[in-house]
Amino acid sequence: MFHRVTIVGLGLIGGSIGLALHARKAAEQVAGYDLGKGVCDRARKIGAIDQSYSSLADAVRGAELVILATPVGAMRVLLQDIAPSLTPGAVVTDVASTKAQVITWAEEFLPSSVSFVGGHPMTGKELSGVEAADARLFHNRIYCLTPTARTRPGAVSKVCELVEVLGARVRFLEPVEHDGQVASVSHLPFLASIALVDAASHGPAWSDASLLAAGGFRDASRLAAGNPEMYRDICLTNSESITHWLDEYITSLQTLRKRVAAHDRSLGDTFADAQQTRQRWQATYDEMSE
Amino acid sequence: MFHRVTIVGLGLIGGSIGLALHARKAAEQVAGYDLGKGVCDRARKIGAIDQSYSSLADAVRGAELVILATPVGAMRVLLQDIAPSLTPGAVVTDVASTKAQVITWAEEFLPSSVSFVGGHPMTGKELSGVEAADARLFHNRIYCLTPTARTRPGAVSKVCELVEVLGARVRFLEPVEHDGQVASVSHLPFLASIALVDAASHGPAWSDASLLAAGGFRDASRLAAGNPEMYRDICLTNSESITHWLDEYITSLQTLRKRVAAHDRSLGDTFADAQQTRQRWQATYDEMSE
Repeated sequence: MFHRVTIVGLGLIGGSIGLALHARKAAEQVAGYDLGKGVCDRARKIGAIDQSYSSLADAVRGAELVILATPVGAMRVLLQDIAPSLTPGAVVTDVASTKAQVITWAEEFLPSSVSFVGGHPMTGKELSGVEAADARLFHNRIYCLTPTARTRPGAVSKVCELVEVLGARVRFLEPVEHDGQVASVSHLPFLASIALVDAASHGPAWSDASLLAAGGFRDASRLAAGNPEMYRDICLTNSESITHWLDEYITSLQTLRKRVAAHDRSLGDTFADAQQTRQRWQATYDEMSE
Repeated sequence: MFHRVTIVGLGLIGGSIGLALHARKAAEQVAGYDLGKGVCDRARKIGAIDQSYSSLADAVRGAELVILATPVGAMRVLLQDIAPSLTPGAVVTDVASTKAQVITWAEEFLPSSVSFVGGHPMTGKELSGVEAADARLFHNRIYCLTPTARTRPGAVSKVCELVEVLGARVRFLEPVEHDGQVASVSHLPFLASIALVDAASHGPAWSDASLLAAGGFRDASRLAAGNPEMYRDICLTNSESITHWLDEYITSLQTLRKRVAAHDRSLGDTFADAQQTRQRWQATYDEMSE
C-alpha cells in the first residue's frame, strides 16, 4: 500500500489512475493538482483524489510516488518546477506517449535523491477529461515501462506495483525502442488519418463527396478527431521515429499507386495479405483484451 | 408494386434488398440467382427471395426489374450473359462501387429494348454474405443513381421506386463524378488502410510493436479487413480517379513529413483544422443517419 501518491494532471488518464487507486484501496492518500479551472474539484467529487492543491510544490511534497499525467509538452517545465519540492526517496513516473525526450529532461532536472521511471499505458478513449475517467481503463492493457541503466531497481518495483493496482500488464522496453514502436502503431496511424482528412477535404468536390462518405471514411479518419496539442507534442518529441515511419508509409503508397495505375490484378493478393495480417492482429488484440 | 424482381448475387447487399422488398410487400415475386453453393437456399430460408434459379437465363426471364448485386469484376460477363434472356422493357440496375466502367459495358452488351440505370447504395457492414442481410441496411443512407443522357426517364423512375422501398435517399450524379467522389472518401481510405498495415507489419519489430497497437491502430486499419477481390475490382475499374487521389494523399503526407522533421510547432494548427473538418463531417453524418 502506498502512503501518499500525487497525481499531476487530472485528465482521463490521471483521473482514472486516482479512481483505480481508490477502488483497490491502494493508497492512504491521493493528492491531486491540475491547472484547469475547477478540475481538482471535479476530480475530488468523483473520488479520483482525496485532497487537491493549488500549489504544485505543496502537492508533490511528502509524496512517495508522483505521477505526471500531463501532455508531454508540459513535461519539461513540470520536471523543473517539482524538482526542489520532491521528498528524498520519492519515485516519479509519467504517462506520456513518447519516452526518450522525457527521460532526458528527468535526468537533467530531477535531483539524484529521487528516481524517475518512464511509463506509458496503452489505453485511451475517444472522450477526454476527468469526467470520462474510469477505474477499469487500464484493465488487461499493456503498460510500458522504460527504465534505463541509471534507474534504481526499487523505483521500478514501486511503479510495477502501481501497474498491478491498475490491472495492467508491464512491458519493459528501451526508451528509443518504445518510441520507434509506438511511432509505427500509434503516431503513424494518426498522421495517416490527418492526411486523409486534409487531402479529401481540400478536393474541389468535398461538399458533395462528404455526403457519400460512410463507415469506411468514419473509421479511417477517426484519429484525426484526437487532441491537436497532444499530437503536436508527440511529433515534436518523437520526430525521428515518426519521420522514418512516414517514409515507409509513403513508399508503400507509391508502390500501390504504380500498381493501381498499371491495372495490376495481383493487387488482390496484396490486399488478401494485408487482410490476413489485420485479422491475426485483431485476434491477438481481442484475446489480450478479454 | 413490382411484379417480378430478380436479384443476381445474394450477398449482404442483394440479400438485404430482397428482405426490404418483402418487408414492404413491394414485389409480387422476388427471384434470386447466386453462383455460391447453397446461397440461394439460405436466401430463401431467411425470406430474401421467393424463388431460386440454377439458370441465370431462367432467373432474369420475365423480370420487370433486374438488380445486379455481384462484385464489379463479375459485371462484364454477367451483362453479356443476361442480355439474350431479358424481357423487352425490363430495367436493369446494379449496386457496384464504380459506375463509369459498368455503364460502358451495359451500353455495349444490353439490347436497346431494355434500360440500364447505374446505382450505388452508400452502406455496408463489416460482415458479408446473405447471413448478414438486413432489411434496414439502406435506411436513411444515400443511394447514388447515375443515369446518362441515353437513360429512359421511365427506367429512372422505376429504380427511384426501389430506392424509396429501401428507405434510402436518391442522389443523382454523373458516372465519372460519382467515381471521383467515392475514390476520395471510400477507395482512398481503403488503400490508406492497406498501406498502413503493409508498412507497420513489415517493420523489423512488428511482433513486439503489434502488442502495443491499440484502439487507434484498430480504427485506422479496419478497412484493410475488407474483401480483397472486391477492392481489387474497384481498383481495376476506377484506376484513374484512385491514382489521382493517391497522389493528393502522398503530397499531403510529404508535407507533414517535412514539418515533423523540422519540429514545426504550427503542426498543432493543422491538426486542429483537420479535427474541426472531421467533427463537422461527423455531425452531418450523424444527422443524416438519424
